Amino acid sequence: MTDTNLSAILYKTGDLRLEDRPIPEPGRGEVQISMQKMGICGSDVKYWQKGAIGHFIVVAPMLLGHECAGIVSKLGEGVNNLKVGDRVAIEPGVPCRQCEWCKGGRYNLCPDVFFLATPPDSGALARYHVHAADFCFKLPDNVSFEEGALIEPLSVGLHACQRAGVNLGSKVLVCGAGPIGLSAMLSAKAMGAASICMTDIDDRRLEFARSLGATQTVKVESTDPEEVARQVKSALGGWADQAIECSGAQFSVELGIQSTKPGGAFAVVGHGPDNVTIPITTAIAREVEIRGSFRYVNTWPAAVAMIASGKINIKPMITHRFTIEETLQAFETAKSGAGVKIMISCHK
Amino acid sequence: MTDTNLSAILYKTGDLRLEDRPIPEPGRGEVQISMQKMGICGSDVKYWQKGAIGHFIVVAPMLLGHECAGIVSKLGEGVNNLKVGDRVAIEPGVPCRQCEWCKGGRYNLCPDVFFLATPPDSGALARYHVHAADFCFKLPDNVSFEEGALIEPLSVGLHACQRAGVNLGSKVLVCGAGPIGLSAMLSAKAMGAASICMTDIDDRRLEFARSLGATQTVKVESTDPEEVARQVKSALGGWADQAIECSGAQFSVELGIQSTKPGGAFAVVGHGPDNVTIPITTAIAREVEIRGSFRYVNTWPAAVAMIASGKINIKPMITHRFTIEETLQAFETAKSGAGVKIMISCHK
Amino acid sequence: MTDTNLSAILYKTGDLRLEDRPIPEPGRGEVQISMQKMGICGSDVKYWQKGAIGHFIVVAPMLLGHECAGIVSKLGEGVNNLKVGDRVAIEPGVPCRQCEWCKGGRYNLCPDVFFLATPPDSGALARYHVHAADFCFKLPDNVSFEEGALIEPLSVGLHACQRAGVNLGSKVLVCGAGPIGLSAMLSAKAMGAASICMTDIDDRRLEFARSLGATQTVKVESTDPEEVARQVKSALGGWADQAIECSGAQFSVELGIQSTKPGGAFAVVGHGPDNVTIPITTAIAREVEIRGSFRYVNTWPAAVAMIASGKINIKPMITHRFTIEETLQAFETAKSGAGVKIMISCHK
Amino acid sequence: MTDTNLSAILYKTGDLRLEDRPIPEPGRGEVQISMQKMGICGSDVKYWQKGAIGHFIVVAPMLLGHECAGIVSKLGEGVNNLKVGDRVAIEPGVPCRQCEWCKGGRYNLCPDVFFLATPPDSGALARYHVHAADFCFKLPDNVSFEEGALIEPLSVGLHACQRAGVNLGSKVLVCGAGPIGLSAMLSAKAMGAASICMTDIDDRRLEFARSLGATQTVKVESTDPEEVARQVKSALGGWADQAIECSGAQFSVELGIQSTKPGGAFAVVGHGPDNVTIPITTAIAREVEIRGSFRYVNTWPAAVAMIASGKINIKPMITHRFTIEETLQAFETAKSGAGVKIMISCHK
Repeated sequence: MTDTNLSAILYKTGDLRLEDRPIPEPGRGEVQISMQKMGICGSDVKYWQKGAIGHFIVVAPMLLGHECAGIVSKLGEGVNNLKVGDRVAIEPGVPCRQCEWCKGGRYNLCPDVFFLATPPDSGALARYHVHAADFCFKLPDNVSFEEGALIEPLSVGLHACQRAGVNLGSKVLVCGAGPIGLSAMLSAKAMGAASICMTDIDDRRLEFARSLGATQTVKVESTDPEEVARQVKSALGGWADQAIECSGAQFSVELGIQSTKPGGAFAVVGHGPDNVTIPITTAIAREVEIRGSFRYVNTWPAAVAMIASGKINIKPMITHRFTIEETLQAFETAKSGAGVKIMISCHK
Repeated sequence: MTDTNLSAILYKTGDLRLEDRPIPEPGRGEVQISMQKMGICGSDVKYWQKGAIGHFIVVAPMLLGHECAGIVSKLGEGVNNLKVGDRVAIEPGVPCRQCEWCKGGRYNLCPDVFFLATPPDSGALARYHVHAADFCFKLPDNVSFEEGALIEPLSVGLHACQRAGVNLGSKVLVCGAGPIGLSAMLSAKAMGAASICMTDIDDRRLEFARSLGATQTVKVESTDPEEVARQVKSALGGWADQAIECSGAQFSVELGIQSTKPGGAFAVVGHGPDNVTIPITTAIAREVEIRGSFRYVNTWPAAVAMIASGKINIKPMITHRFTIEETLQAFETAKSGAGVKIMISCHK
Repeated sequence: MTDTNLSAILYKTGDLRLEDRPIPEPGRGEVQISMQKMGICGSDVKYWQKGAIGHFIVVAPMLLGHECAGIVSKLGEGVNNLKVGDRVAIEPGVPCRQCEWCKGGRYNLCPDVFFLATPPDSGALARYHVHAADFCFKLPDNVSFEEGALIEPLSVGLHACQRAGVNLGSKVLVCGAGPIGLSAMLSAKAMGAASICMTDIDDRRLEFARSLGATQTVKVESTDPEEVARQVKSALGGWADQAIECSGAQFSVELGIQSTKPGGAFAVVGHGPDNVTIPITTAIAREVEIRGSFRYVNTWPAAVAMIASGKINIKPMITHRFTIEETLQAFETAKSGAGVKIMISCHK
Repeated sequence: MTDTNLSAILYKTGDLRLEDRPIPEPGRGEVQISMQKMGICGSDVKYWQKGAIGHFIVVAPMLLGHECAGIVSKLGEGVNNLKVGDRVAIEPGVPCRQCEWCKGGRYNLCPDVFFLATPPDSGALARYHVHAADFCFKLPDNVSFEEGALIEPLSVGLHACQRAGVNLGSKVLVCGAGPIGLSAMLSAKAMGAASICMTDIDDRRLEFARSLGATQTVKVESTDPEEVARQVKSALGGWADQAIECSGAQFSVELGIQSTKPGGAFAVVGHGPDNVTIPITTAIAREVEIRGSFRYVNTWPAAVAMIASGKINIKPMITHRFTIEETLQAFETAKSGAGVKIMISCHK
């Protein structure tokens, strides 16, 4: 009996179903992948629950899922960087390859990118998925599929650290201790940061952050960013050389600017309100650079190497595991806010 | 009869007097300068009229003036980069030379800088002034003292262009067509910008900007930054690669972010309200970098070279001229908003 | 009667023939171009005369020519950046779009690039040529096809200036006053260089360089690079901030290192001997960076903008003009060393 | 009884004596330091044995020693970053603070630097030494004086890694497994390098390198750099992203260029012959940047932080220990080539 392609399809807000779909065939430059692991991202939960994130409005039916790894099961024409049986992590965005940004090494800004599970593009939570071969990255034997799937959220944190210019001996502030904040912290550490202070409003998250490697934590209990900035500076023993905002809170944007040293950089990842108020006079007089950080660019090779060499240990982030048949249960768990990262096995 | 040191001294808000002061003697590493030309900056007028700018509160009595050039009239001990009779432009800020920022090439961020006419430090509007020799830059014969004095405001614009990364073929937006905006425009042009669009609310200023070299101008008549951004993009034939805000208006901060291409940079010079609201989601998704630009660092040598080679012509900015004896009249003219740059002759 | 595709084909060393070929049809993402102007490059002459450059060995039959501009005559599937009738300049290298270098914004280093008239790839000296649409750049009406064709050699110089980091107020040394050296000089000037000293062994070339904008020239008459470096520094009034080697001479590599200021950069474009001897102790103690400069990357948009705005005037480089029917005569002229740039009209 | 200032003084080639000297008093901005530990550098041995290194010719009598740490014993006027009793590491070069390079953040290139034990400047191998306060860096309690002294050689390697741009996931080649090569390896690792291959001609040094953290080693047994480059690439699983030359051998300069990926960087630290032959055509076609690396700039704060946080463990480099009274024996041991780093206790 032939295989089927069980897929998690969003039909409308709140209506997520498992269905068999035809197994897709790889075109030129593509590979077919037997999906092994898929992590659930906050955006997946929002598309399911709200039907939209900002101006990205679900075009149903749409598959969810973009944090994934699998095994190459078929090669399209002209593929020579991979072979059947290769274990790979998938970078979910495939850009147009022709625009100013693609040619300039910043394909994350490509206006015509295809990006998994971001409307109008469908996702990959299914038994089989077809993807551009050059956005599939071989995993060494000592890197698991779960780790491979986690490279996606890790990359968001890693890109933010590169945007901020974390380097040897840096004191770093990371605002927000969710999966992206933790990824930023692990990346900063691997890039040579000497101290990393994390902030959050939740004690348990800060405790988890310390267990993963944060050297300091500050629980945000004041509504005055300057006061919390003083706590951060006291914890770090001075200004943050770089700050990274992963909470989406207006408060943290101001905290980041107030905590960063003159001449330092502040990368902003977290999506919150469309508009925020910033202390611009302070930012000018200190030449603190405010750098938006969007997705990632060229991070998979470094991330694979860091996980393979043991320098980044991302596994502890996984707190729950489900099969693809239990997808709804997995999403309900994610929605409840339990745990850090929820992982779905896509294979039989 | 010996020379005297006629000086313009601010005694209290609104009380600016001309007085003879002792001629200062140069210490080790310093030179005494027979001042020739001094431009009036908006900050001079504010200290005179308001007694403070933000947390910089006048410590009276204080001399005004920091845009200046003169002739070396005496050498302190250990000075060997200059000789008596050299014509020099003066960089007004002398940093501590010991802190992280001084050692790191960003002495404009030195927390212990001495900066002319910025409380608690006194200025240089006098017949004689003593200054660190290495912050006095020799002028070639074909550069006038007036041009030498104008290097200070030019440097503010030039530094902003360097912060923004203007380069060959750039499309640049400059918000605000005052002396700093014009300096930024002239600098951008000299750095290879292909088109420079300036915005302002004043038609005459825009006309002057075009006469100096702005390739496009947009008069701001709407209160909707996105609408004006569309006008700017239409004028430039596409996104601005870099934007430079020199107006101090909240509106322009938002305009700059909305007009800058994904991956571009937006330098903010203009001091306005302490806090501004920015479209952060847009800035993140486009990775537009917001870079405060404060004073300048290492700009005098390039500015002297550009003026000497005729590649930057800054002279047309001077619209009024006075002697030091007419200082009050000069300040009244500046206060009235007439003209662009007002120049005072300090010598007899 | 239908059009024909007269083409200049190299059959073997020294055997260049004009022949009618079928008119090529554009594939997906490609356009067919009615070729208008083609410049002759030194490499074309070498392939014709020697059959090889280094390990690039002619695979005959091969078309010559890669400095070109034309009119879009037909669109392939999926092309939406151009329309029939558009006047375009052609960037001759089309990279793989998938490798580390293509994704990282340095597609000039792509190991799988298709590059016109570089074995095993054929060129474009013909009435019709098919090219990737996104490597064809629209020319404004005020930029001629000849200027469009000259963007290719201009780009080599421009890329070298960007590699070297020429900026506002720079003192620049350019070694070699051939087409690439002149392109580097014009680019450096447009990027804000205050002085540009060119060296050569030929007086007439230096005179031509001065007529195009070189501010200083030094004729190389000594065999001692340190002596000539002293002449260069005397001409520039100090160290070169950046140096650019476009002569291919061992002597110039040493001259560049000796003339560049501590902390400066030296871009090397010129291909000469495979190995050269360099004063490494000097390069170390001065931290002079030696940066190879290979072809160009993302230069066409800036080059078009600079020519359109009149900031770079490249036309005077054209000294001889021929029709495609006179191709052999054009190549004989190029081989003789007469003139600077020889241009062929490809259209009827 | 008052203290004496036992000092190691080089009178002429081969004539190194211990003598009591007056205890120096700190001037303005200086501190007096009770020296605790001093490492012996290869340059110390050369000045003692040869009387010169290149154009640096010993001006006798001259103290040796520049790798040091001690306790602040007296403050000069105006010092407020330190207090008596502070434990400090000493950065040996004190620049002029006024030149283009000092103001530009590259004070290692200052032509007027005072540099310990580099003629005509004397060194610090004595019981007491006076130094610029801002070039003395406080050591936390968990960093020993020996580690403090080792920051100097560590900084050479660290600066080279920064020059080369080592970053997250890098594959790095380090040529030469002496103290500088080991310092580069430890620094690269702390900056996030995923794999570091070291080369040397000595098996024992490579074994020591592996024990300190090198992930791969290649013993150089061929005289063909391209062959050894293939071995390096095989060991690293691909090109080196960055290479760092610390051996001073002509062979290694060529090896570095041949092993580095297109677009990668090659930092050259090792001083060997004044001139070397390099494969320039390869360097051009690959745009491999050759970057001299001279001493260090602004490395002490990061180095202190990395040692304090345990991310760099430099202690195992110390293989021999002597008292200042045993200085001659210490130098004889260094001269014999035994061990890696020899440490002298300067205190009573």
